[in-house]
Amino acid sequence: MDKVNLADKFALFHDTWSPKIAGELNGQHILLAKLQGDFVWQKHDAQDEMFLVISGRVAVYLRDRVVALEEGEFFVVPRGVEHKPVAKNLAEVLLFEPQGTAHAGDVRTEMTVNELERI
Amino acid sequence: MDKVNLADKFALFHDTWSPKIAGELNGQHILLAKLQGDFVWQKHDAQDEMFLVISGRVAVYLRDRVVALEEGEFFVVPRGVEHKPVAKNLAEVLLFEPQGTAHAGDVRTEMTVNELERI
Repeated sequence: MDKVNLADKFALFHDTWSPKIAGELNGQHILLAKLQGDFVWQKHDAQDEMFLVISGRVAVYLRDRVVALEEGEFFVVPRGVEHKPVAKNLAEVLLFEPQGTAHAGDVRTEMTVNELERI
Repeated sequence: MDKVNLADKFALFHDTWSPKIAGELNGQHILLAKLQGDFVWQKHDAQDEMFLVISGRVAVYLRDRVVALEEGEFFVVPRGVEHKPVAKNLAEVLLFEPQGTAHAGDVRTEMTVNELERI
């Protein structure tokens, strides 16, 4: 039950596409992730997922459009909607999703993580 | 299903201690609020509540200590824990809490809001 400083937490890791648990409430995880490059197309059938950009820029590709996010902007990907996050340059995001959400939805690749680390 | 720019949303209102709904996911509301001065002591028996400071400084008083939050810091007040947010100067926060959470927990005063506005 301590406060969390986002910059301090982001300084603790350098791997990309590997969300870390920074907090939890009401059955949801507050995750921090660094993104760079293209991730895989994914969807979560039963969970909405929030991307809040803390630094940098993130493009959330949807099948019919691209949502371009800058620092201080968030987007909620509704459950069941296919999406692919892309960050041309390194970006830092806060994610909000239910505990137990599969990292890359129904997709398993070498980019997916099975167990989320707590920081 | 649009992105949300925090600065644009905060520019839409000036009242304090009156959280606005800026998004929702998985039965939770993403709320934006401006804080200035002292709020009332409150607790939520069944809901954890997150305060993420977007600008300014917020002190979350607990019965046994004070959690001093600066920009880019968050704190989760666990369910059942009495707390009182205080902002000496104007501060902007993002709150995360389940839909239907009473604004000031079990407390009703002239500072409490019955129906949250959507922005």
